[in-house]
Amino acid sequence: MSEQTHLFQDEIVKKIIEKTRVLWALKHALSLMSWDLETYMPPRGVEDRSVAFEELEGLLHRLSRDPELEKLVEKANERLDQLNDYERGVVRVMKRMLRIVKLIPEELARREAKVSSEATVVWREAKKKADFKMFEPYLKEIVEIQREKAERLGYEEHPYDALLDLYEEGLRTRDMEAIFSELVPATKRILEKVLSGGFYPQNHPLEEAKYDVARARELLKSILNGFEWPWDRGRLDESAHPFTIELGMNDVRITVRYEGYDIKRAVYSLVHEYGHALYELQIDPRIARTPIGHGVSMGVHESQSRFWENIVGRGPWFIPWLKERMDKTIGYTRDYTLLELYRYVNTVKPGLIRVDADEVTYNLHIYLRFTIEKKLIEQSLNVDEVPQVWDDMMEELLGVRPRNAAEGVLQDIHWSHGSIGYFPTYTLGNVIAAMIWRTLWSRSQELLRELRLAELRRWLGENIHKWGATYPPKELVKRVMGEEITAGPLIEYLEWKYLKLPGEVEDYLKP
Amino acid sequence: MSEQTHLFQDEIVKKIIEKTRVLWALKHALSLMSWDLETYMPPRGVEDRSVAFEELEGLLHRLSRDPELEKLVEKANERLDQLNDYERGVVRVMKRMLRIVKLIPEELARREAKVSSEATVVWREAKKKADFKMFEPYLKEIVEIQREKAERLGYEEHPYDALLDLYEEGLRTRDMEAIFSELVPATKRILEKVLSGGFYPQNHPLEEAKYDVARARELLKSILNGFEWPWDRGRLDESAHPFTIELGMNDVRITVRYEGYDIKRAVYSLVHEYGHALYELQIDPRIARTPIGHGVSMGVHESQSRFWENIVGRGPWFIPWLKERMDKTIGYTRDYTLLELYRYVNTVKPGLIRVDADEVTYNLHIYLRFTIEKKLIEQSLNVDEVPQVWDDMMEELLGVRPRNAAEGVLQDIHWSHGSIGYFPTYTLGNVIAAMIWRTLWSRSQELLRELRLAELRRWLGENIHKWGATYPPKELVKRVMGEEITAGPLIEYLEWKYLKLPGEVEDYLKP
Repeated sequence: MSEQTHLFQDEIVKKIIEKTRVLWALKHALSLMSWDLETYMPPRGVEDRSVAFEELEGLLHRLSRDPELEKLVEKANERLDQLNDYERGVVRVMKRMLRIVKLIPEELARREAKVSSEATVVWREAKKKADFKMFEPYLKEIVEIQREKAERLGYEEHPYDALLDLYEEGLRTRDMEAIFSELVPATKRILEKVLSGGFYPQNHPLEEAKYDVARARELLKSILNGFEWPWDRGRLDESAHPFTIELGMNDVRITVRYEGYDIKRAVYSLVHEYGHALYELQIDPRIARTPIGHGVSMGVHESQSRFWENIVGRGPWFIPWLKERMDKTIGYTRDYTLLELYRYVNTVKPGLIRVDADEVTYNLHIYLRFTIEKKLIEQSLNVDEVPQVWDDMMEELLGVRPRNAAEGVLQDIHWSHGSIGYFPTYTLGNVIAAMIWRTLWSRSQELLRELRLAELRRWLGENIHKWGATYPPKELVKRVMGEEITAGPLIEYLEWKYLKLPGEVEDYLKP
Repeated sequence: MSEQTHLFQDEIVKKIIEKTRVLWALKHALSLMSWDLETYMPPRGVEDRSVAFEELEGLLHRLSRDPELEKLVEKANERLDQLNDYERGVVRVMKRMLRIVKLIPEELARREAKVSSEATVVWREAKKKADFKMFEPYLKEIVEIQREKAERLGYEEHPYDALLDLYEEGLRTRDMEAIFSELVPATKRILEKVLSGGFYPQNHPLEEAKYDVARARELLKSILNGFEWPWDRGRLDESAHPFTIELGMNDVRITVRYEGYDIKRAVYSLVHEYGHALYELQIDPRIARTPIGHGVSMGVHESQSRFWENIVGRGPWFIPWLKERMDKTIGYTRDYTLLELYRYVNTVKPGLIRVDADEVTYNLHIYLRFTIEKKLIEQSLNVDEVPQVWDDMMEELLGVRPRNAAEGVLQDIHWSHGSIGYFPTYTLGNVIAAMIWRTLWSRSQELLRELRLAELRRWLGENIHKWGATYPPKELVKRVMGEEITAGPLIEYLEWKYLKLPGEVEDYLKP
């Protein structure tokens, strides 16, 4: 507490922080419940856990509608000019939260929760049977609810803006349109060259290699140790789908999955999650447990995971470092050269499944989803037309066509959760990660070229992580990178890595 | 939900259950937070966890003071005669809870929580230094707070009654006095004979035997498997101090500790915790998440753990079963006979430390604490006199004298937590366990003699477990055993096992 007095001087802001601590504590408990559900909970505990979630989420919602808190925030908002950046951040985040809670009536929130929980069950079944018709009525209701939410939340230009803003403060439809209008044609152009160039393979024999799970665990531990992972502040566990969860800035937990073959899948999901985790671990401890004491948005969070996964981890600089650890643990990589390992972790292949997509093709998957979501929300597309549009766009963008709904429109869980407006933050993350790459590349290239991990961490910590949600995402990016968010840096990065680097990659691959 | 309608028909009781579900959910979250704190939480997460505990316990307290809930309970209480046993149980438990919450003002509860959390830190340090003076001022304040609590809660005969009742509904000082007045002299008499008899040794060479922790894990797993532990409804983990926690009746978690030597310590703490766990696992699913959906009291809970640990687990019937599993895992027991193994797990030695005490001497440790607590609360003893009284009583009861406060008055954590009135429930548990033994012994001895584990579980489930807190503890015991709680059965059991059994033990030890 005493540390916080340095940052928070304003009496009203201090009261706001005091009053929101119970909300923080409830979120802490809910996060632990989620983590436990995915890792250690005995299977039949699920019914009680669901009831507990429902009760505590409802309670969180009720406690968030605190009129006293609202008054304090309004009062603080009237004297923003007397507040420092941290205090202003608290007021901004709280205003946003209270506005959303206020504009979404409890009845709608409950309906959304109910439909989502049913839809998730049906989606799983529908995906198994590759039967979109099963899922269609649920998706219809979800789209209706999201449209109603958009109307209630309000927007200036496009109803989809209201939903985008829920995941990424201030993100508008036209921001994403501007990004995709440059990125999509550039990606298609680069992809064509990569596919005809032959340096980056579409498949690699190592993808077939089976590994021993115990050795893979050793490998992943040695990677985290190489990153100086603070085991006293974090954990590594296993779950069906990898994720990172923050229970506090001294308790950040990663999970991974071991499939038993194609080790790069486990390695890069670890490095991805590490990027998320590092963000939370490096937030200024003085803003712990306050409304600004966490990553600012989905997009900025994803920029961190993508930066580590793709720009650090799939860069040539990472290969000698990784091979050393692979050789010591899973062993079979000893028979391969550094160049082969680099090509193994950088296959490029137009495919049907987003989560398996490479750096080059990934954003085309997002563009497809963005287009469909936008049209659903503006009512220029009906839910029953979605599979057709999906398949046609896949063919047009990636030259592949799903044989069924399971590998097409039903592949992602997001819509069943009611998340419409979430997907674009993935591309936004890629875009911001590339902005970080360009900034480093022009100012201090050696951090990447020489894989100076501690300095990379420090740079990210000082420039991005430590602020938490003090500044809104767009402002944070502008402060660090000195420019607005555009697709330019990502295109530049892809051109550098996929068109230029093949000619000089040996220079980077010296151990 | 639908299942509950069979049991709960009364509209007001149904409303009470509905309203208390959020309290259940908060307790579920708090239990998970406790479990995680002791098992998997990264060490530096402790600060955030403490804040979360404080906030959510405060919230639970505030939500419990719900005037609407109180009105409903009052209303239901006016028509008790129209309610069934389950409904009446709900009303009784809620009345009790609301009464306690109402009579203890928030300020006192907060003071208690604050002192306890400070006192626990100081106690740890004081114990390390064996310095009672360090802890004395804290114990003084704790006694004062508990005395104030007793006055506020009210009592008919003795202020200590009010505190006993917090841990064991309806337990009075004179109940424990009646038990100890028989049990203490009988114990001393039996102990003397055991020590001079020579059958039960004071020490055993196997106590020095070191074990491999991985093999011990296998052993404990095989014991739980032998008990048909439902792994889909429970877990086994490791923590500094063994405990059982119930997150729901389909999520019950045991922890144990492996010290690396004297395997019986790990084995019997597992069997002890299993007794607690089985109670929660066998509660009627139709009362899940209601105010009666958990073990009824500390004493009845302890009777279950003690029954499994001592009566089942340290009985001669258990030895062939245990040896088979030990021989297969830790292995070195192969060199010992069944009789030797029986003697190893049944050493009797008057010692200084309660948690290391055997079946015979254990209750003398509780009698000492009961006597001191009672005197502190009735103000016939000052806190600064406690060490002297402790040491003198140890010498008188057990013939051993602590060399310092660490092995005397500072050995237990309970007082630092503010728990005064808790210790007697340990002896009550032993007493009730022996009542179960006598009931079984006279009606269906073969369940023990032939170690019919499934039938034992079923008997306990049908007679005790399934009811949860439907009946108050004394009434439950009377219903099952047909008599009031007295020390008689425990004395009879100790005489049978320690005086009679040595002459015929070989009859039981056939594999």
